[in-house]
Amino acid sequence: MNYRFVFNIQGKVLLAEAALLLAPMAAALVYHESALPFVYTILPLLLLGGGLSLLKPKNTELFAREGFICVGLAWILMSLFGALPFVLAGDIPRYVDALFEIVSGLTTTGASILDNPESLSRGGMFWRLFSHWIGGMGVLVFIAAVLPVSGDHYMQIMRAEVPGPTVSKLVPRVRKTARILYLIYLGLTVLEFIFLLCGGMSFYDAILHAFATAGTGGFSTRAASIAAYDSVYIEMVIATFMLLFGCNFNIFYFLLLGQFAAVFKSEELRIYLGIVLASVLLIAGNIAAAVGGFGRGLRYAYFQVMTVMSTCGFATADFDTWPALSRWVLVLLMFGGGCAGSTAGGMKLSRVIILVKSFFHELRQQIMPSRVKRIWFESKPVSDQTVKSVQVFFFAYMAIAGLVVLILSFDGTDLLTNITASIACMSNIGPGLGAVGPSCNFGFYSDLSKLVMSLEMLMGRLEIFPVMFLLSPSVWKGR
Amino acid sequence: MNYRFVFNIQGKVLLAEAALLLAPMAAALVYHESALPFVYTILPLLLLGGGLSLLKPKNTELFAREGFICVGLAWILMSLFGALPFVLAGDIPRYVDALFEIVSGLTTTGASILDNPESLSRGGMFWRLFSHWIGGMGVLVFIAAVLPVSGDHYMQIMRAEVPGPTVSKLVPRVRKTARILYLIYLGLTVLEFIFLLCGGMSFYDAILHAFATAGTGGFSTRAASIAAYDSVYIEMVIATFMLLFGCNFNIFYFLLLGQFAAVFKSEELRIYLGIVLASVLLIAGNIAAAVGGFGRGLRYAYFQVMTVMSTCGFATADFDTWPALSRWVLVLLMFGGGCAGSTAGGMKLSRVIILVKSFFHELRQQIMPSRVKRIWFESKPVSDQTVKSVQVFFFAYMAIAGLVVLILSFDGTDLLTNITASIACMSNIGPGLGAVGPSCNFGFYSDLSKLVMSLEMLMGRLEIFPVMFLLSPSVWKGR
Repeated sequence: MNYRFVFNIQGKVLLAEAALLLAPMAAALVYHESALPFVYTILPLLLLGGGLSLLKPKNTELFAREGFICVGLAWILMSLFGALPFVLAGDIPRYVDALFEIVSGLTTTGASILDNPESLSRGGMFWRLFSHWIGGMGVLVFIAAVLPVSGDHYMQIMRAEVPGPTVSKLVPRVRKTARILYLIYLGLTVLEFIFLLCGGMSFYDAILHAFATAGTGGFSTRAASIAAYDSVYIEMVIATFMLLFGCNFNIFYFLLLGQFAAVFKSEELRIYLGIVLASVLLIAGNIAAAVGGFGRGLRYAYFQVMTVMSTCGFATADFDTWPALSRWVLVLLMFGGGCAGSTAGGMKLSRVIILVKSFFHELRQQIMPSRVKRIWFESKPVSDQTVKSVQVFFFAYMAIAGLVVLILSFDGTDLLTNITASIACMSNIGPGLGAVGPSCNFGFYSDLSKLVMSLEMLMGRLEIFPVMFLLSPSVWKGR
Repeated sequence: MNYRFVFNIQGKVLLAEAALLLAPMAAALVYHESALPFVYTILPLLLLGGGLSLLKPKNTELFAREGFICVGLAWILMSLFGALPFVLAGDIPRYVDALFEIVSGLTTTGASILDNPESLSRGGMFWRLFSHWIGGMGVLVFIAAVLPVSGDHYMQIMRAEVPGPTVSKLVPRVRKTARILYLIYLGLTVLEFIFLLCGGMSFYDAILHAFATAGTGGFSTRAASIAAYDSVYIEMVIATFMLLFGCNFNIFYFLLLGQFAAVFKSEELRIYLGIVLASVLLIAGNIAAAVGGFGRGLRYAYFQVMTVMSTCGFATADFDTWPALSRWVLVLLMFGGGCAGSTAGGMKLSRVIILVKSFFHELRQQIMPSRVKRIWFESKPVSDQTVKSVQVFFFAYMAIAGLVVLILSFDGTDLLTNITASIACMSNIGPGLGAVGPSCNFGFYSDLSKLVMSLEMLMGRLEIFPVMFLLSPSVWKGR
């Protein structure tokens, strides 16, 4: 294990977090609030981060395991420090609650323990929603974009942080790839901000909701979430940006380069849009009678499908009151999530497609063993190792979600609540059904349950392995 | 495709069903009921079965696909004819309901559409519970045991009907293996019958409940299931036999041969017993307050854990009213099911063990790619093909169960009912939670839902592939 490299990167991550905390601190100052909660968080970050950065690695040799460890450790450290401003400002007095809230923010889950988020300080609210934006694209990708990182070994870290079964570089250099990704991310965020301003949202609300949509997070400045604005325009803008942020960012790069053929050829994109269309029509028809017409049905269905499929988690309607058919479609969409290489959570559509293909591949292999070809995806054959990883991932995903339900059940909450709470955390969605439905919150769970769900959210965002690595003794026993 | 062989086997299966129907016919005659419902079912079986048996195969060359097709087709034909006596006797007037009931019987699911099973004719009731015994070990294994079958090619058929990721022969000859399995099966059934008689059960109830336990089916002659007897002795006997019938039958063969070392070495058996013990203690503690003490808790927990883990489905307590923790433990056990090579349903413990091992294998592979060994199970390395099949099976299992919930949701029933109904059918358990809880039945579902669940029960019993093969056009296009 290249410990020096790992700790050096942790130092950079903590320094980056200190820099990022300047934004909510500025917000606090603008609104005449105390900057001290942020100052007292930034100071230890600078000290520890600066100290760790001094550890120069002897070599830059990195394997997959170092990538996973760097990413897992970085996210846990960021969360531990990121919870401090909430506690120091008195926004969330208990540390465990604050930790749950910031993990939920960074992992872009959007599950809250707050009864009334509107009571937060302006600075605290800014940090809460800004954390979605940081976590959406990932802080290690951010470091690659802004700091001089040492060569292509850094790709191991990108692979561990960027979601999806395989990660490809857009351009030969890692640093340039990271910059392109962040520029697209920033551009789309600014675009949404402008659209929301045009819809009559305040400057503060517009910028924060743009952050929350971009990271497909789901926190809102309002207790009633997007429903508070009661505006078809704002709902359609946000739903459409959720659709965009659920796409693989490579698509936007191809669009920028004018390579439209590559966009149309994308298998994942076509399936993504197909599923969105089919689900919206099905749900709109199913809820039409209950919400007063197919038109209103379409409005709610489009927003709700996008909020679940992009795993954003904004709410405009309490879908817990919808018919069982619509609710089940939403649960199925939760598992799938968005596209690989997007800011969305869930298992990622690519993985689901590979799983479905591997099923038919196995069927064909049993029928005609001699004539079996490989599995193809996105016009490329999929390696056996990738298929295996995806299959293992699927089992681990389900098994961990199932075991978390077991731990939550000790709290005595009802089963549907626990099941959907676990899925919502694992898939980084936010609200579930029952007592964790869109109009409720996670505050009633025990501290143990909150810590377990925090770990589950991290596993969901980082796709299990980085967090599992940290828990494996054999990793720490050296090479 | 060796069509002649496939049709010849179908003929034998239909003749075997005709012979097996003589048992309920005799029961009807003993209780002075009309034998005509059985006569009118046996006659077409003899005609069609006899006709198909005349098709002599030109060769006995069999591949995996012929095995799957033989088994899938045989089970569907048996079900289509097996539903007739219920309709002809007026026990279950509607054919779709009768089909659901017999599929539930043969697949040893035990989900019923009957409001009041006690209103059935004696002959009908005998057939309903006897079908569990037929389906438990499988009719194609039965044919191998009693008819002269052509050589070791028949192993392809055994593989498709006997549950588990891999099937091994106990002795070099298939026919002898099938005989040993059926003799153990018969012996244990008789033993349970005697134990139940000693507990004061009537001859008729004892023989039928022995059938239902042996197949781990779950139908009962009583509407209140085993709770009707309100006897600790009967509950403990049945729970213990559910435990036994959930074991791999190889274990009993080793016991008969006196090879105790092989029994103690069995990884699956040790894990099976460990899970049973842990679950019983956990649930007993969890429900102790509600049922009046830890002792009563143990009694209910042991029975309920065994009924779910062996996927039998007998009921003594309405576990739907138990705390969320106990209910979730039961749901998790439902997925796992019993051991491979048992009469239990579910995914089989072997598969779950291989899945867990493949997860840690992947983790190790990421940490130290150079030092990765193979996955070992039962002191043997597991082939990559087996691991892949198990992984594909897991995904298919979950995906099919999820899609069935989608179809059931069109009926407008609540979500928890639909989810647990689908799991109960896929895992061949019987009751679920909510409106399909232990004290309810499946009668209220639409015909479409009943047909879909019938197909799902067959997929669960035959482990997906045989049924999927029948639905694949490419199978029917010849070689």
